[in-house]
Amino acid sequence: MTPAEAFGKVLKRERHLKGFSQEKLALICELDRTYISLLERGKRQPSLTTILEVSAILGIPASELIKLTEELLNKKKG
Amino acid sequence: MTPAEAFGKVLKRERHLKGFSQEKLALICELDRTYISLLERGKRQPSLTTILEVSAILGIPASELIKLTEELLNKKKG
Repeated sequence: MTPAEAFGKVLKRERHLKGFSQEKLALICELDRTYISLLERGKRQPSLTTILEVSAILGIPASELIKLTEELLNKKKG
Repeated sequence: MTPAEAFGKVLKRERHLKGFSQEKLALICELDRTYISLLERGKRQPSLTTILEVSAILGIPASELIKLTEELLNKKKG
């Protein structure tokens, strides 16, 4: 699993937990829905700003999103 | 302060704490020294992969680097 794929899985899970559609998240972040979809499928790599933006909208610290991403990456390695 | 500038300050501080030169960090990360310099000055925005790479080399979790970045951003806001 690539870092982008791990981040995508975490993003999708957290988005669902907040009850946000891709459209709603995209609209609030001022990003394209297609881009959110690509991120969640690990087809695009998020920049620092994107990581901070989506975490702010989802109401969790960016460091927590990254921690979950690292945990997923380490689990797959182990 | 932009997110890239905050990350750059954190990166520079952590690199110094480890006693790494920009050259050494660049060499181990297989990145260009110029790119490390641009990152540290907030002139380039790191991707998720770059964040994970430099944190692995510096021996701290990427989530910790991001936490320090968020703290710096919030301090400047407050």
